[in-house]
Amino acid sequence: MNSDNSMENQRPLILVTNDDGITAKGIRSLVEAVQPFGEILVVAPDKPQSGMGHAISVHDPLRLKKSSVFQGIEAYASSGTPVDCVKLAICELLKNRKPDLLVSGINHGDNSSTNVLYSGTMSAAVEGAMEDIPSVGFSLQDFAADADFTASQFVVKQVVEKCLSSEFPHHVCLNVNIPKVDEKELKGIKICRQARAYWRDSFDRRIDQFGNPYYWLTGEFENFDNGEDTDVFALNNGYASIVPTQFDMTAYHVMSDFNNWKL
Amino acid sequence: MNSDNSMENQRPLILVTNDDGITAKGIRSLVEAVQPFGEILVVAPDKPQSGMGHAISVHDPLRLKKSSVFQGIEAYASSGTPVDCVKLAICELLKNRKPDLLVSGINHGDNSSTNVLYSGTMSAAVEGAMEDIPSVGFSLQDFAADADFTASQFVVKQVVEKCLSSEFPHHVCLNVNIPKVDEKELKGIKICRQARAYWRDSFDRRIDQFGNPYYWLTGEFENFDNGEDTDVFALNNGYASIVPTQFDMTAYHVMSDFNNWKL
Repeated sequence: MNSDNSMENQRPLILVTNDDGITAKGIRSLVEAVQPFGEILVVAPDKPQSGMGHAISVHDPLRLKKSSVFQGIEAYASSGTPVDCVKLAICELLKNRKPDLLVSGINHGDNSSTNVLYSGTMSAAVEGAMEDIPSVGFSLQDFAADADFTASQFVVKQVVEKCLSSEFPHHVCLNVNIPKVDEKELKGIKICRQARAYWRDSFDRRIDQFGNPYYWLTGEFENFDNGEDTDVFALNNGYASIVPTQFDMTAYHVMSDFNNWKL
Repeated sequence: MNSDNSMENQRPLILVTNDDGITAKGIRSLVEAVQPFGEILVVAPDKPQSGMGHAISVHDPLRLKKSSVFQGIEAYASSGTPVDCVKLAICELLKNRKPDLLVSGINHGDNSSTNVLYSGTMSAAVEGAMEDIPSVGFSLQDFAADADFTASQFVVKQVVEKCLSSEFPHHVCLNVNIPKVDEKELKGIKICRQARAYWRDSFDRRIDQFGNPYYWLTGEFENFDNGEDTDVFALNNGYASIVPTQFDMTAYHVMSDFNNWKL
């Protein structure tokens, strides 16, 4: 990937990652969809890394191994998180060339609303935004390992074509979610804001073979947001949602409240 | 903690967590500082979880064990991430009572600027904000295991006193960073915005005993933000910084750019 071959460098370089692991159907569907648009480099986790958020490996060293999962495409599996994969791709594999686009996914499961915070798929895209690379996370509202990504591939192609032909604002990325519908039932693609919806968590408490308790995280997603401009509303109405996403978490609207504390 | 003892319930309930693990000096210093303000419940990771961001345990079950690390204080060690600890405390240990305050830290190391995204300390506070609990993450600009938390404890007491006596805005938390200075050198506490500063990552590539490469994530923090209203500026000038922090990552300022794509 440090090639000086100028012919090769004429095509856009697209970095592909995910959080379900390099063998997931979602990333295979993503590679298939983006392959016509440029030169592809895949760097993805060697095992499922769902729910890893923006985690990075601080205490453990990382492994990075060439993978033959994708025929004719340069691919690496890493022992790290999705964000680690992006960092390894940029710093270790691509030293002399910045990707023209980073795509992450297609996630098996919805990353709308506050799920953006827990999502390894979206954290990879946010990491791309920090590096000022146009970056997009794609997620399908279907957790099944054999989910049908046909409608998702249609959306990927629409979005990637625009990303490569348009001005992409600096230091933002896109959170794209696709509803679980047939391609012909998809009503369209809407630019949205992140809904105010949260997980109502619970734990499934069980007893192991030694009589000790252990806990599985479970829960239900609850939407407290009636806005028709949200990602959750779009998905519930058969549209794919795109939330332009940034990483300044400052709560500007309450700065004066805290200034009044006179600390 | 599900006690019906009304005397006990008259004091504020303060939930304490961290990401350096339940035996770190930082959480011991935090517990010491907040103990006079209320009834304390500690639920913290049983091992270091730095850099875990907003990770949750999706693929692994969680353990939760009573801990005697803090004399006379109810404490639990969990096998999970900082965000898992918050969820376990709220859903499993405190079913019938909502904490009046969540404090996380004191982190061994700075969480200013974009570090908020990688930080387990701050992700625990953001999780508290999602649960609409007044929440504060504290971090000291010193990675040392035996760091001096005296100035930090002073800041903790100032901030916690205000949190418990003032109106706390909904669905936000505070990112408090303390410079590495003696208590008497601390110039004050400033409300700030998150600086535009990033890690310039690199990897330390080594060869293991079998001749295979492995990689340690390293890097340097670089500030691209000249603003005097940022957390990085405050810290560099001897002030503790407080960034009010929220979790709507929508990039409202570029919504129209993407609407113009006419997808």
